[in-house]
Amino acid sequence: MSRMIILTEADLKSIVKLDAEAVACVQDAFHALATKAVAMPPILRLDIPEHRGEVDVKTAYVPGLDGFAIKISPGFFGNPDIGLPSTNGMMVLLSAKTGLIQALLLDNGYLTDVRTAAAGAVAARQLARPDAAVAAIFGAGMQARLQLQALMLVRPIREARIWARNTAKAEKLAGELTGAFGIPVTATADPQSAVAGADIIVTTTPSEKPILQASWLQPGQHVTAMGSDAEHKNEIDPAIVARADLYVADSLSQTRRLGELHHAIKAGLVEPDAGFAELGEIVAGLKPGRSTPEQITLADLTGTGIQDTAIATLAFARAGSAGAGTSFDS
Amino acid sequence: MSRMIILTEADLKSIVKLDAEAVACVQDAFHALATKAVAMPPILRLDIPEHRGEVDVKTAYVPGLDGFAIKISPGFFGNPDIGLPSTNGMMVLLSAKTGLIQALLLDNGYLTDVRTAAAGAVAARQLARPDAAVAAIFGAGMQARLQLQALMLVRPIREARIWARNTAKAEKLAGELTGAFGIPVTATADPQSAVAGADIIVTTTPSEKPILQASWLQPGQHVTAMGSDAEHKNEIDPAIVARADLYVADSLSQTRRLGELHHAIKAGLVEPDAGFAELGEIVAGLKPGRSTPEQITLADLTGTGIQDTAIATLAFARAGSAGAGTSFDS
Repeated sequence: MSRMIILTEADLKSIVKLDAEAVACVQDAFHALATKAVAMPPILRLDIPEHRGEVDVKTAYVPGLDGFAIKISPGFFGNPDIGLPSTNGMMVLLSAKTGLIQALLLDNGYLTDVRTAAAGAVAARQLARPDAAVAAIFGAGMQARLQLQALMLVRPIREARIWARNTAKAEKLAGELTGAFGIPVTATADPQSAVAGADIIVTTTPSEKPILQASWLQPGQHVTAMGSDAEHKNEIDPAIVARADLYVADSLSQTRRLGELHHAIKAGLVEPDAGFAELGEIVAGLKPGRSTPEQITLADLTGTGIQDTAIATLAFARAGSAGAGTSFDS
Repeated sequence: MSRMIILTEADLKSIVKLDAEAVACVQDAFHALATKAVAMPPILRLDIPEHRGEVDVKTAYVPGLDGFAIKISPGFFGNPDIGLPSTNGMMVLLSAKTGLIQALLLDNGYLTDVRTAAAGAVAARQLARPDAAVAAIFGAGMQARLQLQALMLVRPIREARIWARNTAKAEKLAGELTGAFGIPVTATADPQSAVAGADIIVTTTPSEKPILQASWLQPGQHVTAMGSDAEHKNEIDPAIVARADLYVADSLSQTRRLGELHHAIKAGLVEPDAGFAELGEIVAGLKPGRSTPEQITLADLTGTGIQDTAIATLAFARAGSAGAGTSFDS
């Protein structure tokens, strides 16, 4: 018989938000990845093509943390047709000392949304110009909203542009974000014009064909590509990987297989074993981040188990302080 | 917001038992593995050596089933020192159509115990002589008990011997099982004498060095080795794999990496790509099982995600009929 805490999505939304502490928690996780004997096995992936479904399971253990998360992330892309969200899932937090279940985080993907956006903030903090003020966001889903919110936590953003394949959705989101964030957010029908003059470009789409073209980029821009988390996804022109002055992976072993780097390797533009910095190495000061205002920088984010362990640990600690959740014996 | 059923270990013990239906359910799963486009990705494994801990995550999707399970199995081998069981864990049952969570099966490893023993019954049914009456069991843990119980479901067992490294534990279990099963069960201090004259030998230990020796085997015996589920575990002399008239894997891709076959390959006794039957192929009649009373047969069981999906599906269906469990919204 063991006792665990069950936290619902509503519980988790009340105790964990996309704020400076969430960003710090994810930044610390990347620091640990570069400096500690973190165990982060390859992602387990199950595909169910007849239902346009996929499930990723991620985990990571950080020496010194009391617990580690195992995250189950389903994506079923026919769900919107029947009025359900595409992505769902939950995390299980286990004791690193006994393997007993400490908490079930029934977040329906909420904590993933937060830790994913927080990684965007960490990347921008290390790689975007300190005076970056104009953001271009590709996509009009949850991450489009959250990535902009994340940028605003770390850079003095005063204007944003939204491009999405569905212009009506982009316009709707732009209106909402103008109200929510108090800065002008405009929708554009042309992705190139969204990019022109932007300081930071964040791609958040599930595209399988490049949208962002290398020829559009201007000196000093920072790009975060966070939509690709599977072999077949590809948001940016592979030439950008080769052209960028600084390419940074969240996890090089993952981006070589799943990220934008994978497509640059496949196109023969980058050697399969080419070495690049990881975000954690820059956070930890082991490798340089942006070194001049003119550099074009690129962060390739596929999503890592260490972010899940970090945000689950934060949620569990906050639930303890707040007395949130339901205690359950089994 | 989605609604799921939470089933505790007590709920699950009341609705799922190691019985003929559980064996049939696992047998059907192996049949599906051989005949359908089952998706069963490699096991995700996380090791936490400083706490003698390991976690396996397994899953499998069977076309036609409404759901699929993701199972989290921790094993922390220092737990008994602090009064906790070594193995724990849970399963999550997800809809194969939407990815939504259908049920949380907080079984603390109980369903794994049942589906693992049920695979032993399936193997004995296909491979042991129909008149097999004497069983030798190595080990004195939960699987020692359950594997004997499983054999009794499929073969006319009238005597059993227990050998374990700890003779006191073997004696205690032998006493219990004599009472529970109504047949003479005796403990022996010498593993070779346990094997002499046995019809079926089941090894259920976490040994890292072979216990069962090839020279001990006699014509007509069937061996099920089910203790090894990781690279470093090894219960039987690798020569047995080469010497057996029929070697059968639960999943060849797994036993080549994790099972007894792995050690026979490492020892150079078997080619890495040597072809062998899988249990499901024999169940489905695609390959022959035991063909003469004199053959020595060997089943190498590492535990498969398809067994988890099968038993979780059975548990969910029974919970529905019985009105068991707690409904939970998140």
